[in-house]
Amino acid sequence: MLDRALLALSLILAANYAAADPLPSWAETDARARIIDFVDSVTNAGSPDYVTPADRVAVFDNDGTLWGEQPVYFQLIFAGDTVQKMVDTDPDFASSDALKAAAAGDYQALAEGGEAAIIEVVTATHSGLSVDDFQASVADWIATARHPTTGLPYTGMTYQPMVELLSYLRDEDFKTYIVSGGGLHFMRVFAEEAYGIPPENVLGTYTETSYEVVDGVPVISKEPAIAFVDDKEGKPINIERTLGKRPILAGGNSDGDFAMLEWTTAGEGARLGLIVHHTDAEREVAYDCDSHIGRLCDGLEQGPDRGWLIIDMANDWDRVFTGAR
Amino acid sequence: MLDRALLALSLILAANYAAADPLPSWAETDARARIIDFVDSVTNAGSPDYVTPADRVAVFDNDGTLWGEQPVYFQLIFAGDTVQKMVDTDPDFASSDALKAAAAGDYQALAEGGEAAIIEVVTATHSGLSVDDFQASVADWIATARHPTTGLPYTGMTYQPMVELLSYLRDEDFKTYIVSGGGLHFMRVFAEEAYGIPPENVLGTYTETSYEVVDGVPVISKEPAIAFVDDKEGKPINIERTLGKRPILAGGNSDGDFAMLEWTTAGEGARLGLIVHHTDAEREVAYDCDSHIGRLCDGLEQGPDRGWLIIDMANDWDRVFTGAR
Repeated sequence: MLDRALLALSLILAANYAAADPLPSWAETDARARIIDFVDSVTNAGSPDYVTPADRVAVFDNDGTLWGEQPVYFQLIFAGDTVQKMVDTDPDFASSDALKAAAAGDYQALAEGGEAAIIEVVTATHSGLSVDDFQASVADWIATARHPTTGLPYTGMTYQPMVELLSYLRDEDFKTYIVSGGGLHFMRVFAEEAYGIPPENVLGTYTETSYEVVDGVPVISKEPAIAFVDDKEGKPINIERTLGKRPILAGGNSDGDFAMLEWTTAGEGARLGLIVHHTDAEREVAYDCDSHIGRLCDGLEQGPDRGWLIIDMANDWDRVFTGAR
Repeated sequence: MLDRALLALSLILAANYAAADPLPSWAETDARARIIDFVDSVTNAGSPDYVTPADRVAVFDNDGTLWGEQPVYFQLIFAGDTVQKMVDTDPDFASSDALKAAAAGDYQALAEGGEAAIIEVVTATHSGLSVDDFQASVADWIATARHPTTGLPYTGMTYQPMVELLSYLRDEDFKTYIVSGGGLHFMRVFAEEAYGIPPENVLGTYTETSYEVVDGVPVISKEPAIAFVDDKEGKPINIERTLGKRPILAGGNSDGDFAMLEWTTAGEGARLGLIVHHTDAEREVAYDCDSHIGRLCDGLEQGPDRGWLIIDMANDWDRVFTGAR
């Protein structure tokens, strides 16, 4: 009797499992079908493209790929809010045009100051303190700050279809990684809760850090110098250096991800490169080749010929943000 | 009947499992007991020191901790053998005293040239080629080269007790990592087969690398500049940067590992720092504070007061090399 009950239970569970849709927020379009076909081809033991679980490595850009990046990178808003807090304590802190613009939340003025202005603001807010203290301040900001146009918490501005894709890949024994131009220590604070990606699977841009014993306690601190920029060619370089493996799937949204997709898809066997194309002015923002943030020209032009999947956000996604239906 | 047979089988398997000794090459001394007590304390769900599997991170130095390092670092022998091969092809290749000494396998002359000589030899043999080509040459060397005094292949000169410890820790849901001053791309070639440690769990010293598309094919190459030295304070810095987590167990053998053990054991909760002390002149080489390679002074002096476990190779290990009984 017990045997028969167990058999019945197994059949019910198996049927439910087969029926469960791994990508419920993806529309019934080619994009969805291509993703599922690719995953099937590398995970089915009988497939000529079968890949052993240890080599099922999937890498994703963050800004504009896993969460929003408009009107400016969210990390820059964190930096601006942090300058403002510092000015509240010490009114003389905003001693330059860049810091004044950041304190006022005037990102257009900041952008006009160019890269030097942005580096000044990021350096002022991302160094001179321990990694622990920095991450505590990010955690506090993530818990309380709201996006200027949607009013959502920033972790509500992750893309629901991409969160589902990450989870689907892990269910199929992929290891999922973030490889982003964003700050390593910034992203690690929320990546596990927002995406199910633990700290050791986050790759990003990082400052120099120092190790020092202060009053008998070892402290690792962020120093005012960028040690590595995880963008463009830096992405495949960082992946090779950190993992020693070439991914079989890479996802991005801008030309900063081009080299990562190029390297990934040039490997032998089945590979998938995918680009999130921001086509949805209604639910998000429509932008590509002319945008200052997340500029996408080469990927759109060359991607299709390279076999990359261009995801049309407006048509391929039934839902956009995790925090909004 | 089937149910009873299964029950009997389960009991037999359980009994065998309990009886299996996870550390058969360790003598019945305090060292072995302390390791097992520590592992029990962080893995038993009812323990006040219980640590969730995601945070069971164990890091180990390589040279002198997981395999031998005498009479010189094995990687330097690889470099010398490589110079010799290059000279066979191009007799003018050995254009300096350092390269001549390396080609002749005269490591004493090389050592007399100081750090500059060693850097010259390593640069000449570890850059100017793709990562793939470099690793193919390491694989070839590892498969064929023999140690000058033992005659063993280098992968036979891993320490059997440490290989067992790594395996025991993984069975208890630890993640095991190498964190070594040795070369990242060098170690990755054999770490998985020798230690069960996959490429993404190997941290080491690395050269700059470049990404370039050559005749339509993306290539990552090793450049003639050291980007990061994974020694002393560099070890905790690299662990924090790569994992974003503080280990709960760290093993080393020289003062180059001091900062890594210091940082690991300063964390909250149960922690284990262990030092392999080379006391066995008979089965290996006895050396510590006066050695040029693997110099161990501070660790021996301060380790016991810090609660670190000093492993006395002669007394605590029943067996040394995996390749020799």
